[in-house]
Amino acid sequence: MHILVTNDDGILAPGIRALSAALSRLGDVTIVAPDRERSATGHAITVHSPLRVKHITGLPATAAYAVNGTPADCVKLALEGLKIEKPDLVVSGVNRGPNLGTDVLYSGTVSAAIEAALLGLPAIAVSLADFRETDYEDAADFAAQIAARWQHRRLPPDTLLNVNWPRERARGVKITFLGQRRYENIFDLRTDPWGREYYWLGGAAINDETPESDVWAVENGYASVTPIHFDLTNYRLISEVESWKIGLE
Amino acid sequence: MHILVTNDDGILAPGIRALSAALSRLGDVTIVAPDRERSATGHAITVHSPLRVKHITGLPATAAYAVNGTPADCVKLALEGLKIEKPDLVVSGVNRGPNLGTDVLYSGTVSAAIEAALLGLPAIAVSLADFRETDYEDAADFAAQIAARWQHRRLPPDTLLNVNWPRERARGVKITFLGQRRYENIFDLRTDPWGREYYWLGGAAINDETPESDVWAVENGYASVTPIHFDLTNYRLISEVESWKIGLE
Repeated sequence: MHILVTNDDGILAPGIRALSAALSRLGDVTIVAPDRERSATGHAITVHSPLRVKHITGLPATAAYAVNGTPADCVKLALEGLKIEKPDLVVSGVNRGPNLGTDVLYSGTVSAAIEAALLGLPAIAVSLADFRETDYEDAADFAAQIAARWQHRRLPPDTLLNVNWPRERARGVKITFLGQRRYENIFDLRTDPWGREYYWLGGAAINDETPESDVWAVENGYASVTPIHFDLTNYRLISEVESWKIGLE
Repeated sequence: MHILVTNDDGILAPGIRALSAALSRLGDVTIVAPDRERSATGHAITVHSPLRVKHITGLPATAAYAVNGTPADCVKLALEGLKIEKPDLVVSGVNRGPNLGTDVLYSGTVSAAIEAALLGLPAIAVSLADFRETDYEDAADFAAQIAARWQHRRLPPDTLLNVNWPRERARGVKITFLGQRRYENIFDLRTDPWGREYYWLGGAAINDETPESDVWAVENGYASVTPIHFDLTNYRLISEVESWKIGLE
């Protein structure tokens, strides 16, 4: 089994090291990951500037490359630029902090897994719902346990799994849907040393507690596994919008 | 009616000027847009560096601000930082080039409209399926025609409209679903003036021609209107993944 590993916290993050170590027990691991933290980059890709690749040693992988791009760039570049052997599975993480509900739209970790699915590969995104300096081994082992099933199980090609591990050891596993996780955006208005104003985005997540959602599961100490896909069409509304009778004027 | 306008081609792009002019016929327009091109930024947001805002004159709007951030930043900052009067509608565009099928995942234009929907506002993304220097007035007028309906029609709060105008004058309007638009990614491997190698992402879109998709509609000369939402859950697969009986080991 050949597994491509990436993340959005950068190739030096402890989460990707733990994940690669756990997945190495299943087969060959190739790491292609950003050379620095690229969190909150969403599904950004680099089309207007060059990408540089550096071979890295000392990681628990058969081969490892750092790229000055986004997580989605790393997946594209691994397959179409570096032309690594076609992976059986792509795993992204372990992310520092949860990727729950609408977080998945902003998440570089999840976008890397979506990019893999777009390229026709099975993919898993894994996040640890904890921002402290902590250890990522339980989350990494859980991801490896799911990865091991890929030898027997299949998902449709447009689907991937979004996995979140709770802050403490999980009390069980829930298969969930994406909940709501709004942010109360607070823009601090500050003044720089030269007297010029700037804004800095802060704020806090406001979790919706709908039972059985991913947000609810992780808040209640469960590991959460959500099947997600990348078709944003709202099919239920096609006939509604047709009834608007939009025409050419 | 108060309309917030943004884009991903930057505040100086001709597409946002045409859009603002067309929407100004319906009410007050406030522009908050990136200070430079930020296409292919997906739903990236700026959390690790300051955002600067510049008041801009000479645009067809009641007020206009340039921000050194992404399209999603602009929407967040307009509402929560600049605290502009709450808009009745947010319109993003007119994008230079189509945003069809899986393009919507990479598109800053669409992500700005998704961000507006996340903040509970009705939103439209508008793109012109043409990369030439051309005029954006037909696409802008079509967006304004749809915007005018918001005085009478409503969509659920988690839904927005993704509008694409064809290369030539449209022969009709189709209400569509997102088609497949794969990219044949070609990474050029080049050498810089210092002898160091780099990759540059190129390639071409491969359109899937499924009838009645947005890709098909625009290829065939129609204006396309797609209702999209931001819930990526693949509900059909929840019971399938439950049958995997993933547990704690």
